[in-house]
Amino acid sequence: MTIAAPDTLFGCLRTACLDDWRAYTGHPFVRGLADGSLPERCFRHYLGQDYLFLIHFARAYALAAYKADELADIRQAARGLTAIIDVEMDLHVSFCGRWGLDEAAMAGLPEEPATMAYTRYVLEKGVAGDLLDLHVALAPCIVGYAEIGAALVDDPATRLADNPYRAWIEMYAGAEYQEVAAAEVAELDRLMERRGGPGRLESLTRTFRQATRLETAFWDMGLNP
Amino acid sequence: MTIAAPDTLFGCLRTACLDDWRAYTGHPFVRGLADGSLPERCFRHYLGQDYLFLIHFARAYALAAYKADELADIRQAARGLTAIIDVEMDLHVSFCGRWGLDEAAMAGLPEEPATMAYTRYVLEKGVAGDLLDLHVALAPCIVGYAEIGAALVDDPATRLADNPYRAWIEMYAGAEYQEVAAAEVAELDRLMERRGGPGRLESLTRTFRQATRLETAFWDMGLNP
Amino acid sequence: MTIAAPDTLFGCLRTACLDDWRAYTGHPFVRGLADGSLPERCFRHYLGQDYLFLIHFARAYALAAYKADELADIRQAARGLTAIIDVEMDLHVSFCGRWGLDEAAMAGLPEEPATMAYTRYVLEKGVAGDLLDLHVALAPCIVGYAEIGAALVDDPATRLADNPYRAWIEMYAGAEYQEVAAAEVAELDRLMERRGGPGRLESLTRTFRQATRLETAFWDMGLNP
Amino acid sequence: MTIAAPDTLFGCLRTACLDDWRAYTGHPFVRGLADGSLPERCFRHYLGQDYLFLIHFARAYALAAYKADELADIRQAARGLTAIIDVEMDLHVSFCGRWGLDEAAMAGLPEEPATMAYTRYVLEKGVAGDLLDLHVALAPCIVGYAEIGAALVDDPATRLADNPYRAWIEMYAGAEYQEVAAAEVAELDRLMERRGGPGRLESLTRTFRQATRLETAFWDMGLNP
Repeated sequence: MTIAAPDTLFGCLRTACLDDWRAYTGHPFVRGLADGSLPERCFRHYLGQDYLFLIHFARAYALAAYKADELADIRQAARGLTAIIDVEMDLHVSFCGRWGLDEAAMAGLPEEPATMAYTRYVLEKGVAGDLLDLHVALAPCIVGYAEIGAALVDDPATRLADNPYRAWIEMYAGAEYQEVAAAEVAELDRLMERRGGPGRLESLTRTFRQATRLETAFWDMGLNP
Repeated sequence: MTIAAPDTLFGCLRTACLDDWRAYTGHPFVRGLADGSLPERCFRHYLGQDYLFLIHFARAYALAAYKADELADIRQAARGLTAIIDVEMDLHVSFCGRWGLDEAAMAGLPEEPATMAYTRYVLEKGVAGDLLDLHVALAPCIVGYAEIGAALVDDPATRLADNPYRAWIEMYAGAEYQEVAAAEVAELDRLMERRGGPGRLESLTRTFRQATRLETAFWDMGLNP
Repeated sequence: MTIAAPDTLFGCLRTACLDDWRAYTGHPFVRGLADGSLPERCFRHYLGQDYLFLIHFARAYALAAYKADELADIRQAARGLTAIIDVEMDLHVSFCGRWGLDEAAMAGLPEEPATMAYTRYVLEKGVAGDLLDLHVALAPCIVGYAEIGAALVDDPATRLADNPYRAWIEMYAGAEYQEVAAAEVAELDRLMERRGGPGRLESLTRTFRQATRLETAFWDMGLNP
Repeated sequence: MTIAAPDTLFGCLRTACLDDWRAYTGHPFVRGLADGSLPERCFRHYLGQDYLFLIHFARAYALAAYKADELADIRQAARGLTAIIDVEMDLHVSFCGRWGLDEAAMAGLPEEPATMAYTRYVLEKGVAGDLLDLHVALAPCIVGYAEIGAALVDDPATRLADNPYRAWIEMYAGAEYQEVAAAEVAELDRLMERRGGPGRLESLTRTFRQATRLETAFWDMGLNP
């Protein structure tokens, strides 16, 4: 099951990288969230790095706003940027607070190589390429988390009762986040229409695959605090 | 008279380029605003290009947010970006409406070479250099308009009564805009402290001078609709 | 007559902007070169700014090398960069020497707004967009000069005998430069195939038109030393 | 022992990150090179990723050429770029050939997260910051390899006779590479003089430390083929 139809750009990219995609979305870290067996110190390690990740994720939206060549696109990217720094980061910080992590401590954490790898890969791809390259590099994160959340909630093997990670699962399975991901799927199609063509698929697939592997490496990092 | 003390970075740059600075701030276009003698078609031409300018000005703040390496700086640049696209552009559009220009018409105007020159110079300097280079390239615009507004209001030769450009003069002379400019002067000092040193002055002066000349070329363009 | 077939990307862009293209390639500055009537001080002014232009033209090839994602493309852009800084600039400097301009003097010239406009427009478009956007912004310069050179040599109205600008005309009409332009036309098609599609034509046309107008503004600058 | 005096910028950065620096330069991978105990499959894995690394290293020099604002600096960076793509890559490919790796195979390798992490970190830091930030991010690689080579040759515990990695050690200990590193140390001082000041040390130290850690992660990757 996927939140994107097979004939969307996202659907094509996902199909073209199916092994890597499954390694990411079905990672042991994810299965540990699903049945609640993930050690708490792994989750806390992940949360701290995710905080650092969000800072660069905000920079990626700022980059998108800079790269836009129409006012409507600047406005849309700026809304994404504002949503991250004014809403998502606060939600993240308050979520982390329940796990005993405070913002100053997270801000002072050494950034793990896996965190640097994914964030800088996305940003650098976005600078070297165009808006479509940037969004394709972001898609495994934005859409992947929605697919993971929805899949976990649908999976009878998932244990929600007494699962310490239930709030995390339900956040990404929730309607609000699913909509964010659906909007990203649509944005990819719109950008492909305006800036791409069949000749770009090979290069976009390479980007999508690399970004997907870096998400897997991010889970790996979570398992090795 | 200047809104920046001589020992601020802005004060140093202004002093180092005084002839160019005076050519910009005392330009015939400005004198035409002061006594109301500027032909209306010149002002309307300027307003339309200023609308296109603002779009790239917004992109410059997005670039600053991308270039920030601390969350506080991302937030500050993002607020600047939001202020432009959600407040200033609306103010500008409604101001232009009183001069018979509507937004769709302005958005469709061919961009003048002088508009492209200044906006792309600022953005490209900001990409090639760092945040300090970017802000120094923006300063002649941000701080210069405040100096012009304040100087016109103080100058006994300025005619405010029945001056069709009175609202423009008072907008830039007003407390709100003066504060924006004072914050930019302070930001330049903060960036110089964190990222610069005496060895950078020569290169920053070159940037400041070039940006100032491009402001002069922007006024020239206004006079030649 | 054009050096690119109508069904190449360059041919499409040229056709879509024909009025602007003719204003550029048939500019009074060009006609003054053709009949030798261009005042010498205009030509010298143009040559000095063209020297400053070449520096940023070299930077555009460096940007293309950075933006490449395959080694063959890095190598090709690097060869272009090396050709400019090791060959073309020396040729230009020695050409200028015959007009009484030495390199140190040209390096110290204030950069004209028209020079900044075109160079920074190209570079900034190249950063904000991708390699295809960058090459489309460069094309009016690279291919346009070849078209101008070839057209002048073919035009019976052109006076080559005793024309002080004969060497300039023959340089751009010559086989070597014509090949450079033909390679650029082919590169545009290759990039369009790999990175574009019909949906990009509108945005590429806008870029091509703006760059063409900035070339016209560069000739205007030459006429006003 | 270090190839940079303590009062150079490189010396200061190295001292400020001494623990991280030692973890990198005295890494088990390096010790395995020194006594020849490193498993061949680890070295081959490292060599293949180093090939991919070099491609982005070339892009970093192209970025430096783009970011330069004087012709002399463009030329210097362009020479570095040319040296990598026309000399170093060929040397690397012929060196790898002796280990049974051919270029086409290396070009087709999946890029490891550790390779992406360091290369994209450097490039992205170079885009977001200025030339000094870029060079500080490159320094642990350029200067560190020289320090490692020289230290191994000087260390009585190093076994050169019958060591399969002797050629690698002697390449980086050799006069030619030591000069490259010394030139980089001097370039850092020159850039600090022209673009920096004491207020930048904190941020430069953070960059240097992160880049050093990513070098350590690159060795870790080598050990885990």
